[in-house]
This record gives sequence, C-alpha cells and structure tokens, in this order.
Amino acid sequence: MNYSFAELTKNYKSSAVREILSVIQQGNVISFAGGLPAEDLFPLDEVQTAYDKVFASGKGSLQYGLTEGFTPLREAIQAKMASKGIHTAIDNILTTTGSQQAIDLFSRIILSPGDVVLTENPTYLSALQVFRSYGAEIVSVDGDENGMEYENLETKIKKYNPKFIYVIPTFSNPDGKVWNIERRRQLLELCQKYHVLILEDDPYGDIQFNEGEVYPPIAALDYNQEHVLYTSTFSKSVVPALRTGWVTGPVPVMKMITQAKQMADLHSSSIDQQALYYLLRDFNLDGHIQRLRGEYYHRMTIMRDYLNKLEPGLFTWKEPKGGMFLWVKGQKHLNTASLLNEAVKKGVAFVPGAQFYVDNPEYHTFRLNFSHSTPDNIKLGMDRLVDVLLNPVMI
Amino acid sequence: MNYSFAELTKNYKSSAVREILSVIQQGNVISFAGGLPAEDLFPLDEVQTAYDKVFASGKGSLQYGLTEGFTPLREAIQAKMASKGIHTAIDNILTTTGSQQAIDLFSRIILSPGDVVLTENPTYLSALQVFRSYGAEIVSVDGDENGMEYENLETKIKKYNPKFIYVIPTFSNPDGKVWNIERRRQLLELCQKYHVLILEDDPYGDIQFNEGEVYPPIAALDYNQEHVLYTSTFSKSVVPALRTGWVTGPVPVMKMITQAKQMADLHSSSIDQQALYYLLRDFNLDGHIQRLRGEYYHRMTIMRDYLNKLEPGLFTWKEPKGGMFLWVKGQKHLNTASLLNEAVKKGVAFVPGAQFYVDNPEYHTFRLNFSHSTPDNIKLGMDRLVDVLLNPVMI
Repeated sequence: MNYSFAELTKNYKSSAVREILSVIQQGNVISFAGGLPAEDLFPLDEVQTAYDKVFASGKGSLQYGLTEGFTPLREAIQAKMASKGIHTAIDNILTTTGSQQAIDLFSRIILSPGDVVLTENPTYLSALQVFRSYGAEIVSVDGDENGMEYENLETKIKKYNPKFIYVIPTFSNPDGKVWNIERRRQLLELCQKYHVLILEDDPYGDIQFNEGEVYPPIAALDYNQEHVLYTSTFSKSVVPALRTGWVTGPVPVMKMITQAKQMADLHSSSIDQQALYYLLRDFNLDGHIQRLRGEYYHRMTIMRDYLNKLEPGLFTWKEPKGGMFLWVKGQKHLNTASLLNEAVKKGVAFVPGAQFYVDNPEYHTFRLNFSHSTPDNIKLGMDRLVDVLLNPVMI
Repeated sequence: MNYSFAELTKNYKSSAVREILSVIQQGNVISFAGGLPAEDLFPLDEVQTAYDKVFASGKGSLQYGLTEGFTPLREAIQAKMASKGIHTAIDNILTTTGSQQAIDLFSRIILSPGDVVLTENPTYLSALQVFRSYGAEIVSVDGDENGMEYENLETKIKKYNPKFIYVIPTFSNPDGKVWNIERRRQLLELCQKYHVLILEDDPYGDIQFNEGEVYPPIAALDYNQEHVLYTSTFSKSVVPALRTGWVTGPVPVMKMITQAKQMADLHSSSIDQQALYYLLRDFNLDGHIQRLRGEYYHRMTIMRDYLNKLEPGLFTWKEPKGGMFLWVKGQKHLNTASLLNEAVKKGVAFVPGAQFYVDNPEYHTFRLNFSHSTPDNIKLGMDRLVDVLLNPVMI
C-alpha cells in the first residue's frame, strides 16, 4: 500500500545529529557530541527519596492528573521564576514533557504554513525542525557575540512581519554565547513596537560560571507579560529522565497552548511531576546547581586548555560563561563533517556545526559538549581530538 | 497586544466533559462522569518496588533516552501484543505519553486540512477534537451494536475517500459496545480494497468480563501489517499516572510517527518506562488484570441492578461485556444536560451523551462510569441517580 502523508510532512527532516549519535554509541568513542548533562553528578538518592514520598502519599498519586500540571509543582516553578524576576500567576504556568514540548505546542497554536519565524544563526536544530514541520519559513537575523544586531533585526521584522522570534539568549546551543542586557532590551522594544512575540528558550540559564554578572531573562523585562513566551526545563539542572519542563506567557497564548496540550497527551507523567515537587521542596536544588556550575566550569577549562595548545590562529573559540558547549571555528577551508569521520576512527566525536545554521552554513565550525564526560574522559578524548585537529588527513 | 493564532486553532474546542469534571470535583458529588480506573485497586506497593529497581540500576537510568522508547519495555509490549495475535518487530513499536499521544501524532503525520476521517457515532470525544484540530472533516458511519454497517461503510469510503477510519472496536467509549468478528473482518476487507488506513484504539480490550468470547484486535487480522495503526495503553490496566501507551503499525507510517514524536517531546519519561518494564517483568500483570475484570464486572452489576429497578421502557441500555462504561438512553424528550444539573444538586454526576456524537446528537443519552467508584459509593450514587431519573423536575 502507498501511504499518503500530510502535506506538512514534506518539511520533516531526520536529525543528522541524531544519526551521528546512534553511530557513536557503538564502541569505544568518547563523545563530545550530544547535549547530555553529567550522569556522575545526578542526585540519584535524592531522586529516589522524592519518589518514595510520592508513593507514601497514597494511591491517589497514581491517578490521572490535570492537563495544566501538578499544582504544587507549578507553585514551586512560580517561585523559581520569581527569583529570576519573572512574576506570573500559577494559572499561567503549564508543565510540559521537556521544553521541547513547549516549543512544539507553541508552534502548533501560532504557526500557519508560510508564516515567518526569525531566529539566531546558528541555533537549536530541533527547534528549527519543529518550526519547519508546521510549514514556517525561517529567516535568520545577523548577530554577534552579544546577540542579534539591532538594525538587521528591525529591518527583518519590517520586511517579514514574523509570527515570532526564537532566541536562546543565555548560554546558547550551539555556540554558548550570552546576550548582553542592551541587546535583550532592544529585542523586547522592537517586539513591543511591532507587536511580535518572542519565544525565549532558557534550558541553560542556571548553569552560569561567573556569578558576578546578571543575565535577566527577557521575560523578566516584559513587565506587561504581553510579548514573551518563556520556557525552561529541569532536564539540565536536575535529571533529563523526568522529562519535565514548563512554559509561561501571555494569558490568551497560555489558554490556547493548554488546549493543544490536552489534545497532545492529556497531561505529562504525574508521578514524575509529584516527585519533582518533593525534590524541589526537600532537596537543596540551589546547592546542587552551584555544584554543577563548579564542575561544568572545571570540565570546560580542561577542554579549553587543550584547545589552547593548538597553534594560535588555526582554531578560534570564545570561552563560554555558562551552559554546556564550546563552539570552535577552524580555518575556512576545513570541513568538519569530514573531520568527524576521522575523529570517530580515533575514538572521539563532536557535532559538525553546519547543520545548526538556518542559512550560510559555516562548514568549518564544530560543537563540543563539556558537561557529559568526566574530567578523565575529557582528557582522553581531547588528546585524541587535538591529534586529529593538528594532523588532519583530508582537507 | 492582539494575538494572531494559527488558522487551525479555529477548530479548537474546549472539552465540555472537562469543564463538567472540574465543577464536579468540588464538594460531595459521587461522580460516574470521568473515565477513571479504580484507585483502590492500584498496585501501589508493586509500582514502588518497580521504581526502586530503576534507581538500583544506577545513575544511567536518569539520563536522556531514545525517542522510540525504552527498548526492554518495547520488547515486553511486543510479547503482550503477540499474545493478542499482533506480531510485529520491535523497531515498529513506539512508546507514547498515553494512547492520546499516539492518536495525536498519527493525525499530525496523516491529516491535511480538508481530509476526511470516518468514525463511529458516538465515539471518543478527545479523538474527535484531535482530528478537527488538524482541519479534518469527520463523517460518521452508521452502525449498530455489532459495529459499523457494511453497506454504509462502503458507501462512505467511496464517497469521501477518507484518510483513515477511527474505531474503538472493543468495549468502546462512550457506549461500551464490542464489534463482532464479522464486522471486524468486513472493515479490514473494505480498507484493503480501497486502500484506507484504520486507527484502532484499544485502551479497554484487557477489561473483558466474559472469557469465553474472543475479540481479536483488527490489527491481528491484518497479516500484512499494511492497514492498521494499533494503539493501546497501560493507563487502564496498570496506572494512569505513568502516562505510558504505545502504537504499532506499517513500517513507513511508524517511521514518520517517530520523527513527529522526536519533534513533539524528544521522548516520554524514561523513568516511568523503565519502572513499567520492571513491573511487567516481575509483577503478575495478567493476574492483576483478572482481578480488575472481576471487580469491574461486580461494580457494573451493582449499577445495572439499580437501572433494572426503573420502570421498564423508560430507560434502555445494553449490559457491557467489558470496559468501563454503561450507556443509557432515556425517552426521546429527555435532555440529559438539564438532568445533570439536577443530579449534581442531589450529589451524583454522569456525562450527557450528546457531545460524543459527530452528528445527529441524541440528547436523551448519558454515560455512566462504573470502574472508578467503590461498590459502596456506587450504591450511594445510584440511590441518588435513580431518584433523579424517576422524579425529574424539568422535562
């Protein structure tokens, strides 16, 4: 039988990263490719204790829950956001299956085929896939290490009348950059002026190395709560397997998203949501995040010091101020997709950077994850990688 | 700011059932409205033991998982389906956040605006909402207590060229009916003849009262695995809070659904999936299902016996052979939406039947759930309900 799929499926593209990861998982390869948090730092005992509390609360804990999410967890999320300057009502907070689902549900209720989304370039690949799956056209905005450039942003808003602007302003994936406060304000001002929504994706904001600097979420600057959808997740700060993220934003948008959530899966796992509530209540999450910051910073510096050993000018990168990624540029003629094949043979992996681009892909870029591997494995993997970078066979 | 939503959101409609439920949850109302399993029968200790095994397996259990689902769980699902006559490869099984997500993801990859879906009438309200949210036109097929009628089905397939036919052949929601084997074969034959897909939704198939009769899933009759998407869930047979369902079907369809799943939420909770795997491995689930069958049958008979006390001819119903619902028809002039207001005042609730209809709603129908309330509460609630049914104030 021939299957006739929905018209929009012509926009589906399997993730190249995902295919790379499946290859890498075989054998003895040290992977700096995936965006995984450090397993060795997972608070396993505390998580188990939290689940015990769920079961101790009785059989009612195993029943269906509310589409909006487990109310005490949403109260805890409300408090967590308030500490970042985002003040919103509990009714305005929806728990989701990771922030990926928040990106998907928001896209579902806002995008019609042909609508335009403005993004950074490069940016999070799986968000691009979602936007395209709803038929959106993606247009990139010029930017530098501080965020989108004002003039180019205004020009493109006026030219394309976008449905929304997608940004990861704090320790971005893939390039690890953080927007300065001026650029955050400029984006919001332009969106207020031209009545455009912002989708602020903030999975990494907690993982900040330098405590002296403050990077307020753009949602915290949007006092009227009219222009910013803000999504984050506990996947990076607690554990990914819980698959618990959340989204908040303007009331009419949240009402529509909640309807979409109900159709999508009725509600996310309520056992996990209850466990997360007990974990946030009884576990020192802030202390845990402090520890992650210290460890991830340490791992980043090991990786950075290896890169420093390379001949100056051959590779360039900017030391990240947080997050999970180091973004490296080689010389213009380098093709990091070919380099990956060589690296995997030597037992180390990264993600070639080209696929993160909306347009004008830079084939000489690659992304290194420093959070997942232990310090010893980072050393082992970087020994291998530096060897490949200094003695590339192809080119 | 005025928000401009996606064109398809004009098809969104909040669930009236959901609004009823939120009203009912206040106060002392005994609810036969929701489709909830019996809390008092949840295997709480066994579920906790299963989670303990997850945590005992180490920190790796808390990491990101595969989009397709936790492989050992998918193996267990494969074996469970084989016992029902559905033989498929593990690669062809995707775990989902409840079967609701399977309905949604399949609709997403198959439906373009204007496409037609054929359904029973009445049928599962939340499935209708999903189909409409993708812009589908829903056309009902005439049926009787044994399933869709052959001639009408063929006429409508030829007339509307539907993208798929949605059925709950075994202990349906809302009307609790079960298709006989002839009608199952006829549906499949017509779909094979006209190259149409079937979405077989089977959340209740395990809850069968009469073991003598055999109701093979339509997917089990589809030897070439070309025409049937089959979805089921552990929400009814184990516990809903796990939010773990699955879907299987033709290879090209499953590949496309898996891509949609990746965009939708990367993967469902892997802690829950691992726990479910240990539960299925070490717990006598078949014995538990036997117990549920006995208990639910007992609860149904209590409810049935109350209905038998009513004046013959005033209300009609068919004793269900399984599932969770009793479907009752009053006399033509009865409006069960008005009746509900009266019932709630007396402390009992049901769902008015009209909203389950695609067209030609029968306002004199209502649905009673017999699984959720304890036998004592069923007696208390039915005392109240019979009082309302025999002495309705309005009409």
